[in-house]
Amino acid sequence: MKIDNIDVSSYPHSEKIHVPGELHDISVAMRRINLYPTVTIEDGKRVEHPNAPVTVYDTSGPYTDPKVEIDINKGLPRMREAWVEARNDTEVLPGITSEYGRERLADKSLDAIRFPVRHNPRRALEGHCVTQMHYARKGIITPEMEYVAIRENAACRELGIDSYITPEFVRREVAEGRAIIAANINHPEAEPMIIGRNFRVKLNTNIGNSALSSGIEEEVAKAVWSCYWGGDTLMDLSTGDNIHETREWIVRNCPVPVGTVPIYQALEKVNGDVSKLTWEIYRDTLIEQCEQGVDYFTIHAGVLREHAELVKGRLTGCVSRGGSIMMQWTVLHNRESFLYTHFDEICEILARYDVAVSLGDGMRPGSIHDANDRAQFLELDVLGELTEKAWAHDVQVIIEGPGHVPMNKIKANMERQLTACHEAPFYTLGPLTTDIAPGYDHITSAIGAAIISDLGTAMICYVTPKEHLALPTLADVREGVIAYKIAAHAADLSKGFPGAQVRDDAMSKARYEFRWKDQFNLSLDPERARTYYMEARRAAPDADDRFCTMCGPNFCAMRISQNIERDCEKD
Amino acid sequence: MKIDNIDVSSYPHSEKIHVPGELHDISVAMRRINLYPTVTIEDGKRVEHPNAPVTVYDTSGPYTDPKVEIDINKGLPRMREAWVEARNDTEVLPGITSEYGRERLADKSLDAIRFPVRHNPRRALEGHCVTQMHYARKGIITPEMEYVAIRENAACRELGIDSYITPEFVRREVAEGRAIIAANINHPEAEPMIIGRNFRVKLNTNIGNSALSSGIEEEVAKAVWSCYWGGDTLMDLSTGDNIHETREWIVRNCPVPVGTVPIYQALEKVNGDVSKLTWEIYRDTLIEQCEQGVDYFTIHAGVLREHAELVKGRLTGCVSRGGSIMMQWTVLHNRESFLYTHFDEICEILARYDVAVSLGDGMRPGSIHDANDRAQFLELDVLGELTEKAWAHDVQVIIEGPGHVPMNKIKANMERQLTACHEAPFYTLGPLTTDIAPGYDHITSAIGAAIISDLGTAMICYVTPKEHLALPTLADVREGVIAYKIAAHAADLSKGFPGAQVRDDAMSKARYEFRWKDQFNLSLDPERARTYYMEARRAAPDADDRFCTMCGPNFCAMRISQNIERDCEKD
Repeated sequence: MKIDNIDVSSYPHSEKIHVPGELHDISVAMRRINLYPTVTIEDGKRVEHPNAPVTVYDTSGPYTDPKVEIDINKGLPRMREAWVEARNDTEVLPGITSEYGRERLADKSLDAIRFPVRHNPRRALEGHCVTQMHYARKGIITPEMEYVAIRENAACRELGIDSYITPEFVRREVAEGRAIIAANINHPEAEPMIIGRNFRVKLNTNIGNSALSSGIEEEVAKAVWSCYWGGDTLMDLSTGDNIHETREWIVRNCPVPVGTVPIYQALEKVNGDVSKLTWEIYRDTLIEQCEQGVDYFTIHAGVLREHAELVKGRLTGCVSRGGSIMMQWTVLHNRESFLYTHFDEICEILARYDVAVSLGDGMRPGSIHDANDRAQFLELDVLGELTEKAWAHDVQVIIEGPGHVPMNKIKANMERQLTACHEAPFYTLGPLTTDIAPGYDHITSAIGAAIISDLGTAMICYVTPKEHLALPTLADVREGVIAYKIAAHAADLSKGFPGAQVRDDAMSKARYEFRWKDQFNLSLDPERARTYYMEARRAAPDADDRFCTMCGPNFCAMRISQNIERDCEKD
Repeated sequence: MKIDNIDVSSYPHSEKIHVPGELHDISVAMRRINLYPTVTIEDGKRVEHPNAPVTVYDTSGPYTDPKVEIDINKGLPRMREAWVEARNDTEVLPGITSEYGRERLADKSLDAIRFPVRHNPRRALEGHCVTQMHYARKGIITPEMEYVAIRENAACRELGIDSYITPEFVRREVAEGRAIIAANINHPEAEPMIIGRNFRVKLNTNIGNSALSSGIEEEVAKAVWSCYWGGDTLMDLSTGDNIHETREWIVRNCPVPVGTVPIYQALEKVNGDVSKLTWEIYRDTLIEQCEQGVDYFTIHAGVLREHAELVKGRLTGCVSRGGSIMMQWTVLHNRESFLYTHFDEICEILARYDVAVSLGDGMRPGSIHDANDRAQFLELDVLGELTEKAWAHDVQVIIEGPGHVPMNKIKANMERQLTACHEAPFYTLGPLTTDIAPGYDHITSAIGAAIISDLGTAMICYVTPKEHLALPTLADVREGVIAYKIAAHAADLSKGFPGAQVRDDAMSKARYEFRWKDQFNLSLDPERARTYYMEARRAAPDADDRFCTMCGPNFCAMRISQNIERDCEKD
């Protein structure tokens, strides 16, 4: 598919495969990387030894499926719609119920930028709860649960251990709050995925415009681009004009769960004047976004009035946008945060759409200096209290974490989070392990992200090279996603996640056998690997390919090593 | 200074400072980053609050010193020459003693590419040992030891704890083999630096051509470029024509210790035919390079004949160039490696020039699959045995380590190395924490390098984005060095190295106060940070600068946070 000059129609030498469910009529999409055979010369004859393909977890959705015709004006196929309908606990409303949503719909001047297809929102029937946690606690294995079980096993298929993660295991993890499946009933286009420390480490990417408004097609392209490179979820942090309409385009075309920070839009509605924020405006914003299909909300309900004092000893104060907005509100009004006081009501709303709550860490440290301080950990305790409240409503919860943390203080973050928040999944931004490398914060933070994921963080929020400096371009998104794919995969390997090493082993075998195309195709960024290699090769066109362009033929250790094997065999 | 189109003449808003010794007449160069004042408006008046400058460890040598006139045809000032002379235990030889060195000198056709200034080599007087370890064990604090003590304290000066690392502490660490000062008496141009786990983590960069020979000026430029960005030592891994002459240019112009792998050149001398390698050719190569001023040699003396068998179960065999050469030699000749059998003689040679030995890990794993296997750890035991042999000659030792290691297996590497090798400094290549990201291996390996440095590795060898694919360009060198500066600094912070956090704190304060220029100047790559920011700013020229171009003014957490502080103060 080409949108706005990006091409994400396929991965090289890969095909889309579909694995059927056993409990439900579902079909789980994966990517199979086909490999070239190993070629040997035996008795003067060329002999081909086939190499098994490698199946990998695929976040790109239908965009890389040649059988699906993509039209961003229609949106993606609504795979989950039938599953939700079959549960008989929801109804399609006659129209939008959010006041703001209705206003936007009535505004004819927006017709030109409105998503062309109208889907009336779905909501739980009165008195019903439709969250995956609710079903899980009742012992029900939903199609979503079976879907993620099969999906997590993607890389295990070659090992013959594809039942390691069972649907029942998924159900139990969701029931106990150790994992979430963020799947708003109004976002049936998304492929279910699971966030929990006993599953593959996931990564979130952020998109969104700030001052400079970018076009709608460009925003959709960014979303698709981030999924193509490996983003597991997508946060739309737009703060410009027409957020409502832009979001509709993104959700309808997004194959992964979408998260937002509703306070951003609420603030736009009062023209950026924090003092004018009210619970009513916020509440309507929640409903507006629930009805559009946002899968999880970052809610900074842990920032309390008393916290403003605690920030004073800090070097960088409060660096969370949502957190600083709420802190300012509590100071201006000298009242407790309405997010905290209305938290039960928030959960009641979320439970009717199955929107997960991502408890925001408004007090996260924004510098090495401020890491693990009292403000940070006091808020974490509040998040633990709110976790229990949400769970009482069967609302799924993840907990956001820092930030800027030196390596020696990372472990304490994970340990305290597990205890304070009752093992709800941890979702961290990096952490950045030093403050002194703006322009390279995808690296300062990939180090921290790998370490904290290894210790049990379930999802890491990517950081691009432009962090602290500017909004990322498409190229920066790619850099950030790949850095975080590396961190997540390194943690999966370290944790011994079944099947994680299959791709590494296939890569290393290809490397040792000088199967260059397979090396490119197996890599996280095939195009870059190929480009780097080919640029160098063009400078030495006559050489054979049994060495890389780093060491040259005489000094290629792998070539020598192969020769030694031959010499040894001759003996 | 400009060489070959690179400009490394200064760092922005920084000045070179010189700190005098107390025991010796020495002057230690450092870089001071001058900061702009914090500006507040008090009673309607602009008030400036000065910010103390930040002094940082500087690897760029005289190139960034405006008082030194650089001429690569003359080489750098020979600072250490007087120190060596004053010890009265060396003599300047009438000429080169290496056979090959003499041949090259006699070859008139090489005059055009020869370094213009001839320095006859210096060697220990018969019966003398001139290593820093030798002096340290005799209780002597050399100028080199005081130099590195002052240098390590660079960042502590602002804290008033500049005597944390004392010359006596340096002496003891060197005497006990826990640290080395690689300082060939024939490389008096280099500024002394120390490698040991109780000091700042250091990073090595590799340069060198392979098939495509690059010009001499280009090679010198690469060396200077790597020092400018922060390389602490430099390995010249050239394998092309005129290595001897190229090396002379590099050593004479290099302000950091230079390492080589002499077996590469020895192999060139027999036209790449491993079977023709002999101890005599290798020995003459050692002397040739000792006389030129190489500061440390990687010697793969731990690869034994029996190891060839052990490699068979591996996915990627032997991936060390030097290791595979020696393994092939032992197989072809069915004899024990001459590096192992002649190791005492090697040490006798090295002791007369104070060349340190970096015991190569020929058996390092080249894939996640092969990490921590029997071959790797058996060789490590041999390296431990050789360490004791070298120490018996007062020869300084570091131990090379892997390679490709998943995060969960990193700790075992460090622990076994400390035990097996009697706490000799560990010097690792990464390790890469996954195999699947060619094109991004500076990141896969920076993760491993940060973790292993935190655990006690003293020096990390950088990996560029082109690893496994091609030779790095200057741009790749910069990427690799910065990724490794990040890893090293993250470890310094984590280990609580005194003064390490000064720069982070200054950066974070500048960030919170929107002092953009200071943020650029304090960063590891000022030019990149500035470029990213300015590109984004150009798109919004009218905005004030109290927010970054990521979030825009309404959503800038730091701006809001500052406003809260003001609001709180008003109360």
